Amino acid sequence: MAPVYKLKFFNFMGVAEPIRYLFAYGGISYKNIEIEDADWPDVQKSVPFGKLPVLEVDNKVLCQSVAISRYLGKLVGLLPTDDLEAAELDAIALTVFDYGTKVHEWFHEQNKERKLLLQKELEERWCPRYLGDMEEIVRQKGTYFGGQKISWADLYFVGIMESIEGMWGSKILEKQYPLLHTIYKHVHEIPAIDTYVSNRPHYKY
Amino acid sequence: MAPVYKLKFFNFMGVAEPIRYLFAYGGISYKNIEIEDADWPDVQKSVPFGKLPVLEVDNKVLCQSVAISRYLGKLVGLLPTDDLEAAELDAIALTVFDYGTKVHEWFHEQNKERKLLLQKELEERWCPRYLGDMEEIVRQKGTYFGGQKISWADLYFVGIMESIEGMWGSKILEKQYPLLHTIYKHVHEIPAIDTYVSNRPHYKY
Repeated sequence: MAPVYKLKFFNFMGVAEPIRYLFAYGGISYKNIEIEDADWPDVQKSVPFGKLPVLEVDNKVLCQSVAISRYLGKLVGLLPTDDLEAAELDAIALTVFDYGTKVHEWFHEQNKERKLLLQKELEERWCPRYLGDMEEIVRQKGTYFGGQKISWADLYFVGIMESIEGMWGSKILEKQYPLLHTIYKHVHEIPAIDTYVSNRPHYKY
Repeated sequence: MAPVYKLKFFNFMGVAEPIRYLFAYGGISYKNIEIEDADWPDVQKSVPFGKLPVLEVDNKVLCQSVAISRYLGKLVGLLPTDDLEAAELDAIALTVFDYGTKVHEWFHEQNKERKLLLQKELEERWCPRYLGDMEEIVRQKGTYFGGQKISWADLYFVGIMESIEGMWGSKILEKQYPLLHTIYKHVHEIPAIDTYVSNRPHYKY
């Protein structure tokens, strides 16, 4: 019998969106549980390391967006069988996560002076560094992060970039990174993802 | 023929130490390249995302400490064959990395006021949160993060904790987390790791 999957996150995309993509891609049923602000203090005490997302697989609890996405990526056939190729994609997903963390930190910074500093660092250093190097990797590899074949790392990238562009308020890929933008379009053209995106709740980022 | 491995990092433990443990554990030869400060600007331009460690495997370049360690973990037989169990360990390693990042940020903060704030957060929130939850996971699982069998996540944890305790200046596991301290001791009692640790260069953290 297929396991019962329960995804717990908030009512936005964030680092849960790649997980939702992967469920959609695989046609796998899951319960998408959006935690309300009022319930968060209690939920936080109940989950490992006090962080979301978590994915319950029957009675096991997985945490960490990249670990969950890799697991689902294998389940839905989006992980290469070669271990070295798989590790290269792990590194891409982890780097996408790091980049997202930096944008997230800037977005939620309350101190105005520090927020300006973080924005300057993003503009001048981190956006070009992360996206520039990813663009170059795709240029060398072919169409996707893994070469000619789409992988979970591409879905991970696009899921996180939706959130990053939402916070950043700019279609940065379309403007500056044509190969990454092509991945973005290709992922959204997958029928199952297109259907999911067209029907998902209104998530701002 | 076995691949030629070259590990590039600095002359300290940091997020490269678990990689060095895994090479030692597997009895695998590699070139440990310590980048000097003077050479760093040039090296930084040559590596993906401008970050170390990187592991060259023949002519492929792997980045991200967790991705490299997972890859080597599988190579040396320290990765479970069950995908869900493997994902649970991925999540542990990623969480250890996150915790290490927080300690690293505090350690290198130049602004005195912010450094004090980060220290308070570490003491009151992050150390108990991360280490407390890890201790509880090990209590539920058995002896190691994966249960009765040692895994790459245990080696990852101990490698990073050596660095964290070095920066923090305190044997926090020995004082407060008996089950995690047992993992720490067990990993260091593995003959190949013991030999490596006894002979490695003097790394402060």
